[in-house]
Amino acid sequence: MTIKAFVFDAYGTLYDTHAIAAATEAAFPGHGDWITPIWRQKQLEYSWLRTAMNRWQDFRAATIDSLQYTLATLGLTAEEPVLQSLLAAYDHLTPFPDAEAALRALQPQYRLAILSNGSQAMLDALVRNSGLDNLLEAVISVDPKRVNKPHPDAYALIGERLGVSPHEVVFVSANGFDIAGAGAYGLRVARIERVPAAALRAELASQLATGGAGVDAVYKALRTQMEWLGYPPAVIVRSLTELVDVPKLLSA
Amino acid sequence: MTIKAFVFDAYGTLYDTHAIAAATEAAFPGHGDWITPIWRQKQLEYSWLRTAMNRWQDFRAATIDSLQYTLATLGLTAEEPVLQSLLAAYDHLTPFPDAEAALRALQPQYRLAILSNGSQAMLDALVRNSGLDNLLEAVISVDPKRVNKPHPDAYALIGERLGVSPHEVVFVSANGFDIAGAGAYGLRVARIERVPAAALRAELASQLATGGAGVDAVYKALRTQMEWLGYPPAVIVRSLTELVDVPKLLSA
Repeated sequence: MTIKAFVFDAYGTLYDTHAIAAATEAAFPGHGDWITPIWRQKQLEYSWLRTAMNRWQDFRAATIDSLQYTLATLGLTAEEPVLQSLLAAYDHLTPFPDAEAALRALQPQYRLAILSNGSQAMLDALVRNSGLDNLLEAVISVDPKRVNKPHPDAYALIGERLGVSPHEVVFVSANGFDIAGAGAYGLRVARIERVPAAALRAELASQLATGGAGVDAVYKALRTQMEWLGYPPAVIVRSLTELVDVPKLLSA
Repeated sequence: MTIKAFVFDAYGTLYDTHAIAAATEAAFPGHGDWITPIWRQKQLEYSWLRTAMNRWQDFRAATIDSLQYTLATLGLTAEEPVLQSLLAAYDHLTPFPDAEAALRALQPQYRLAILSNGSQAMLDALVRNSGLDNLLEAVISVDPKRVNKPHPDAYALIGERLGVSPHEVVFVSANGFDIAGAGAYGLRVARIERVPAAALRAELASQLATGGAGVDAVYKALRTQMEWLGYPPAVIVRSLTELVDVPKLLSA
């Protein structure tokens, strides 16, 4: 049961999507706190729903449509250049502080790739702009399968592109739906815990006590915890730099 | 293009799910406002994700798992009797005030049915307890297809059970994903608008002005508006009692 490859989710796992918040607030001063989480939530929903509907469109379409939904719901309107500037933010996300060091530590021993719902064009721009292109052997978009994760066909791309079996791959994600989907497909899954459960509970308790609720807190309550979909991860790490020890843990 | 049948979504369309709020607040005083919307949101997500994963389980399982997620995220625990009392609330939802009058007005001319993601047992109990069983010819659960709406196989059950073509059916739903799924399948779709866009915008603007945000407002922003998934409804009604005029509108 030798691990041969580490494959990473992109948005929220290698790349911090919080940079989107700066773009939304710049475009709509005073409204960024509402736009950012609703946009991201609907973007995910549309990616799942189009897959369930057998009416797939690529992630750029889901990103545009979810932005349109968000602005319409909030009663905001945007000219084309503003929409384009918000979409462009997805090409310039910042890797999490632990991402590059983790990839450098893994690269001598393992094959490294991304598997993302992002369109190939979005992912290629993102990886090039962030300078991670030299560390990754493959940047795999779900595009050719015309489904999004967590559909099993999406995860099948790893074997088809890298020539490895599911049990030879550690798949790394912060996203609960992605962890469940990868596990159901048979990949070895490492969860990167970006928001610890105890920290979130403390934040929510403090909001409950004051009677208020930040939209961001609601978003975190929906998106950052382990899902109850079955298929729990094989291992949970607090930093991507811990991944280099995972093959040893899995074989122990 | 004669309309022969009206088929209704159940939760949020014929039945008001707000009764769940009373049950959650009774079980967890002071926490109901957080539990109710997160539970419902995750219930929907799990129904979609299990369909996309090809790992369907029935809606009772999605309802239990989403409740477990919600309680764990909020740092709450429940004994089995409390969990059962919360699940039982789904068997005793109240029809919206316009539901019975609308069904009575339609019944002389049209075949009437429910098509819901609910399990057959959940739906049968709900319809019987609410007294709508005498007004409905069929209560159709997605169970035999082992997918949830908005998967096309779910909508195919209408034709299989009622022997009607998609264009002979008005499908009625308040849920955006369901409206899109039914439209993509080829049904004539009537949207019942439970939360008008202008009312929601006013509510959100007032929350933005005070710097606070009710969890309920975030939920409404995510769940009550038209989705940007394509397949807009053929008609929008403000009350189910307007449905009796829809066949005339559609043939005009």
